[in-house]
Amino acid sequence: MSLRFLVSCELQYDVEFPSTLILNIHPQCNAAQTIVEERLAIEPRIKVEEFTIVGSENRFLRLQTGKRKRLTIAYAGAVDCDYHLHEAEKIDSQTIAQMDRSAIPYLFPSRYCQSDRLSRMAWDHFGKYENPYDKVVAIVDWINGNVEYVRGSTTWETSAYDTVTQRTGVCRDFAHLGIAFCRALNIPARYFSGYAYQLQPPDFHACFEAYIGGRWLIFDATRLAHVNGLVRIGNGRDAADAAVASIFGRVRCRTMTVDCRLAPGQRYAPLGRKQLKRRGVSLDVGPVR
Amino acid sequence: MSLRFLVSCELQYDVEFPSTLILNIHPQCNAAQTIVEERLAIEPRIKVEEFTIVGSENRFLRLQTGKRKRLTIAYAGAVDCDYHLHEAEKIDSQTIAQMDRSAIPYLFPSRYCQSDRLSRMAWDHFGKYENPYDKVVAIVDWINGNVEYVRGSTTWETSAYDTVTQRTGVCRDFAHLGIAFCRALNIPARYFSGYAYQLQPPDFHACFEAYIGGRWLIFDATRLAHVNGLVRIGNGRDAADAAVASIFGRVRCRTMTVDCRLAPGQRYAPLGRKQLKRRGVSLDVGPVR
Amino acid sequence: MSLRFLVSCELQYDVEFPSTLILNIHPQCNAAQTIVEERLAIEPRIKVEEFTIVGSENRFLRLQTGKRKRLTIAYAGAVDCDYHLHEAEKIDSQTIAQMDRSAIPYLFPSRYCQSDRLSRMAWDHFGKYENPYDKVVAIVDWINGNVEYVRGSTTWETSAYDTVTQRTGVCRDFAHLGIAFCRALNIPARYFSGYAYQLQPPDFHACFEAYIGGRWLIFDATRLAHVNGLVRIGNGRDAADAAVASIFGRVRCRTMTVDCRLAPGQRYAPLGRKQLKRRGVSLDVGPVR
Amino acid sequence: MSLRFLVSCELQYDVEFPSTLILNIHPQCNAAQTIVEERLAIEPRIKVEEFTIVGSENRFLRLQTGKRKRLTIAYAGAVDCDYHLHEAEKIDSQTIAQMDRSAIPYLFPSRYCQSDRLSRMAWDHFGKYENPYDKVVAIVDWINGNVEYVRGSTTWETSAYDTVTQRTGVCRDFAHLGIAFCRALNIPARYFSGYAYQLQPPDFHACFEAYIGGRWLIFDATRLAHVNGLVRIGNGRDAADAAVASIFGRVRCRTMTVDCRLAPGQRYAPLGRKQLKRRGVSLDVGPVR
Repeated sequence: MSLRFLVSCELQYDVEFPSTLILNIHPQCNAAQTIVEERLAIEPRIKVEEFTIVGSENRFLRLQTGKRKRLTIAYAGAVDCDYHLHEAEKIDSQTIAQMDRSAIPYLFPSRYCQSDRLSRMAWDHFGKYENPYDKVVAIVDWINGNVEYVRGSTTWETSAYDTVTQRTGVCRDFAHLGIAFCRALNIPARYFSGYAYQLQPPDFHACFEAYIGGRWLIFDATRLAHVNGLVRIGNGRDAADAAVASIFGRVRCRTMTVDCRLAPGQRYAPLGRKQLKRRGVSLDVGPVR
Repeated sequence: MSLRFLVSCELQYDVEFPSTLILNIHPQCNAAQTIVEERLAIEPRIKVEEFTIVGSENRFLRLQTGKRKRLTIAYAGAVDCDYHLHEAEKIDSQTIAQMDRSAIPYLFPSRYCQSDRLSRMAWDHFGKYENPYDKVVAIVDWINGNVEYVRGSTTWETSAYDTVTQRTGVCRDFAHLGIAFCRALNIPARYFSGYAYQLQPPDFHACFEAYIGGRWLIFDATRLAHVNGLVRIGNGRDAADAAVASIFGRVRCRTMTVDCRLAPGQRYAPLGRKQLKRRGVSLDVGPVR
Repeated sequence: MSLRFLVSCELQYDVEFPSTLILNIHPQCNAAQTIVEERLAIEPRIKVEEFTIVGSENRFLRLQTGKRKRLTIAYAGAVDCDYHLHEAEKIDSQTIAQMDRSAIPYLFPSRYCQSDRLSRMAWDHFGKYENPYDKVVAIVDWINGNVEYVRGSTTWETSAYDTVTQRTGVCRDFAHLGIAFCRALNIPARYFSGYAYQLQPPDFHACFEAYIGGRWLIFDATRLAHVNGLVRIGNGRDAADAAVASIFGRVRCRTMTVDCRLAPGQRYAPLGRKQLKRRGVSLDVGPVR
Repeated sequence: MSLRFLVSCELQYDVEFPSTLILNIHPQCNAAQTIVEERLAIEPRIKVEEFTIVGSENRFLRLQTGKRKRLTIAYAGAVDCDYHLHEAEKIDSQTIAQMDRSAIPYLFPSRYCQSDRLSRMAWDHFGKYENPYDKVVAIVDWINGNVEYVRGSTTWETSAYDTVTQRTGVCRDFAHLGIAFCRALNIPARYFSGYAYQLQPPDFHACFEAYIGGRWLIFDATRLAHVNGLVRIGNGRDAADAAVASIFGRVRCRTMTVDCRLAPGQRYAPLGRKQLKRRGVSLDVGPVR
């Protein structure tokens, strides 16, 4: 299932003194996601570098503000995304012994996903499900049923260990808790940041991917976005790896607008919750349906 | 300065039921570290895979215990290490804007190094030093002066945020705190695990590297090992990435012996604390002295 | 229901240097609990003071070791306990507006019972029960069903905020979590330490009391003791207030034996779980049944 | 040294649904503090109860909002405070063995003062001072020098364990950290809330008292208030015991004004930092100088 999305964002910053920003707003460009066209405009002109880091497909921007006091970064792109559907019952349970080595780093705890401290709880709640896909569906159900989405209820320091008890958060927190539970169950899981079709209100979105049956399947415990309506920006162990903006210096975000819409002529069929019980969605290479 | 070390370890495990182990006991093999010869013996014979992961030079072993009840893994190698000395005063301060992109992931907080929560303390204590090398030397001094090495005082869950207040720990905890402080000061820092010459009692050792002036310089806040007497096994954001053993299943370590000695005919000159105030040591590629 | 218990304990300490101990091993003496006879023996003879603190009925011992190297404290007493049964359905829900002022301090968070951080979780899980007695029964059920009793799994620093996620603990941890949930629901709750009839293995026990319908009802989330087989030693906000031993100096507990048995001629009828669903037990003044 | 202060406050609340408030805004009335006159006005008329709790001199108000939507509470009083000065060098070091029993509960950790986790740090930093008064002066110096007063930097959940690392806070956090360090050193310490003369901006203030030489001496690590210009409202183990307002239900503070001024004809002589190095101030019964 291939869909073309038009994504865009505009970030405006106030700069107190010369600082460096690392932004992660470009969609990834890979076998499952083709950048048809894109445009980046930065006002005023400053030194900018686009780069990726070995072992990741995230496309970072490094900006030096110099002495500018206000900075506007506008990105727009047209992106073809190839979603793949996978029948849950055909997904093989895969042991760590069989797992592709590239997934192994995502088994370990990270800053915001202290899977090592959630182990017993994860096994108590989700250990009973045989199939790893069912395990992750149960995790998503649990988070969605027990954590309330409350804007402003958490900070940049909030981690899965907090969220599991405090029971409020935003998309980032829901993702971190999902990741932590998966890893606690020996299912590799990673953070997914992206543009999200029909997200209300429009914003950057975060959810997570679990490595099941040899693929990275997308899950969104907030249920605010369509998993087959996401344009991938970044991956990482958690938000520390895939922050929209990492600021070194003193810079304040003034305004931010984000948009994600279907390209003209595209037809969209969302996947319902029932369908997602039986079928997983991936945005990576695999058999096209 | 090139030195040949003979390193070895023997790990014995009791296996309760079929499990998977991921070990990280092989020295890295790269431009600064040459494996002259090595030998791995696993008793009884089981399925073993050696692998590395993109973006890392760590050499992992994946073992499936099958139904074996006892497992012995013995590694021995001869390794040539090229240490490089760098005059502190010639080390350029490097901004994030100039920094090699490969170092950037080591700016972000990780499971055991919550640099985001130590920021103000780090700047208060170490912000006054202009030169980044002096900053890290001050960090090492502070940790060594304020944290006591107490075997058994911490657990696998202990993180830099705990250690900074509890003031006890083992080499792993000293390393985590050093890393966290560096990152809080926008100095990339990573975990270093290795064999350590003359470490008493012999054991695997952990310390850290800070990315300064375009190189990874080694620091050991415990001062229990010689920084020019280390054979690198693993790097990572913290111990989660470079654990000697990650166990999936139920396996208990029965005995562990570790050894690191000079090869016959080698002469060793340790670097004193005064020398390290003015000169940093790296175990990566660079101008040989 | 009045029962006579013979309780005793013997504590042996090794003293490294002159220290002070505050012990809380004497049963309380009040309207519901009569000390028929008791005996305290301390070997060798040292300076001892027995005292209570205003606002509490705990009977503390303050001991100065002086230069003694070994200390043995033996307590034995015969205690008549008057348990009162209260029909759950007759227990009035009582608002904070009506509550006796003496219970108010037990509404607030304490060291090991961070009720302020468990608020949302408590209301989500237990808010649906109208009657406060049913709320606490549900809390006890939840803790008993979700937390495993694992000797040695926690330390003196472990608090309810940890236990709620880590899901293991000993009686102290079960009590702290029960207290924290109650307070989060605006039900005053306090720590209860005591001798426990038929506890296996024999030890000091901890559980908790919730202030419902104008009385302090006893609950034991471990279900290891009979709530009508407890002899009260201490109350407090949490274990910080009612520790068996608080040590100032360097003293190590060498051995500890605890015993609690029925006095000759007494007949005991334990209360089953079903009965406790409908009837609460208090060890304070109230209508005798 | 006796001074008459005129203190007042006005609190305005918006009430969402019938709730209970427990306020602690009345100055204590005891041997060192005489209420010359006072006036409480609550608009509109609702059910109000004034009470104290055994073991505390805090004067609480319990209010039931009923169906009122807006609530205004105004308190004004004239209070004579007897401050006592104590020469530091004459203050006897007092062991726990000698200490008045009423001080003992203030040795133990509490919700916001986890002295048990700060023990080693406290001894490392402050253990070298022989005299307990010097210890506490060093604590105050350390906090004042290492923690920055930043309005809005902390929340109701922030505790001493956080503040010691995060290094920002408000008066409440400074007090909690001071208390925690004292207790870690076996010096009883308690929370002090009050009206503060010349505090800018005017507000309720919090600081702490340490039990030294048989008295409760007042310390303010923020140095924003005069220790001999405080009118005591409440004491407790920490802010959980002496909150200005504890709300049960849904009520939002709309406005709050606080005032503390000298009564006409009074002359005020503040105590400088140098004087406080050599002399402690208490607001309890003792020899007048």
